[in-house]
Amino acid sequence: MSVAESMREKLLDAATILFTNKGFNGTSVREIASKAGGNVSLISYYFGGKQGLLEALMIDYLEGYLDVLEAEVKEKNDSAFEKIMNMAEKSLHYMKDNHLRARFVLREMTLDSMLIREITSTYLMKEKHLYSIILKKGMQEGVFHKLPLSWTIMQFRGMVMMPFLHHQYVREVFQLHPQESHFISVYKKELRTWASKTLLRQKEELEKAFPLIAEIREYGAVKP
Amino acid sequence: MSVAESMREKLLDAATILFTNKGFNGTSVREIASKAGGNVSLISYYFGGKQGLLEALMIDYLEGYLDVLEAEVKEKNDSAFEKIMNMAEKSLHYMKDNHLRARFVLREMTLDSMLIREITSTYLMKEKHLYSIILKKGMQEGVFHKLPLSWTIMQFRGMVMMPFLHHQYVREVFQLHPQESHFISVYKKELRTWASKTLLRQKEELEKAFPLIAEIREYGAVKP
Repeated sequence: MSVAESMREKLLDAATILFTNKGFNGTSVREIASKAGGNVSLISYYFGGKQGLLEALMIDYLEGYLDVLEAEVKEKNDSAFEKIMNMAEKSLHYMKDNHLRARFVLREMTLDSMLIREITSTYLMKEKHLYSIILKKGMQEGVFHKLPLSWTIMQFRGMVMMPFLHHQYVREVFQLHPQESHFISVYKKELRTWASKTLLRQKEELEKAFPLIAEIREYGAVKP
Repeated sequence: MSVAESMREKLLDAATILFTNKGFNGTSVREIASKAGGNVSLISYYFGGKQGLLEALMIDYLEGYLDVLEAEVKEKNDSAFEKIMNMAEKSLHYMKDNHLRARFVLREMTLDSMLIREITSTYLMKEKHLYSIILKKGMQEGVFHKLPLSWTIMQFRGMVMMPFLHHQYVREVFQLHPQESHFISVYKKELRTWASKTLLRQKEELEKAFPLIAEIREYGAVKP
């Protein structure tokens, strides 16, 4: 990372912490610069001001997140079920690796403002699109139930994001720590259990049963 | 509602809107009083100040919410499955009827502050407790799968809250409006589908199959 890139990142990191603790309106550009160890004029230079910095913070985070999803969608070998599980798993790792920014951005996305409206209709429409590709693939291949795309995507991405958005709830009520590796590995398993119940057509038990039943239907008895 | 209660409510409503749009730090007590059509001294009188008003706003909302859950837990006739579905449904109606406060409080609960820590460990511990009672009842009666309580509660309440916390996402990406009655009735059905897949032991298909299989095991053939 060049010196310029590193200062840009330092400003974004400082802003994330200050915005999270004191709110956007409660934070001055001077405080951000001071926390990042840089001159206040650098904020104008890199971002054009505090509002530009906020936008850059959110867009950087969301572009990184969509890159992760898109790379998995393009992956050649995985089945639809493995793809959607990998999308979840890689999202969890991305949020863990950027957990301060994840919390801030996810929380900010619940606001009702012009900026959030624009960001939502660009980035979260793309997220919806990427999830749709995989869900449709799974349905076409007969592996997934025929489920309504919209509700399934809302539920699935909501569940993936939940521990990072509701960080304090998860910590206070369940004594769990979403930014720790152990949490991620347990949560991955929970998501897999949930997804296999909700998405997969559960044929295993019936398949065990059906050969016998088919024989009975055909012969009236089981062959010796 | 008495005049005093009505002014107290007006101040809470005004604060909800201002805090949502301008943030807690960006809102003055003078603005709140002016929007509510009252004198600024009333804020000290009712709440002891802006911080006290914020606390009252959150506590009023959460106590109302827990009353709704608790009433359903105490309901005598419902099965565990109907109880948990009613808890969800009544929560949805409560959020719909208070949708501005719901959005604000749910969003505020994602913050990391001393106030939120205290509120979480009081009110959301109780929420966890109420859901636990019903989930345990369903498991003991053999109606629900043996599921880990913590993950199930996190997933379930997360799904119930989602449309109100992610209001703008739901609106921009899916063109749906969580505060409308139509949304609630569709979402209730979705939650029921999800809950029956995740919670209920799905025995119907196997029960259809097992009588035959049991007979085969016993007699080596199906009785005429």
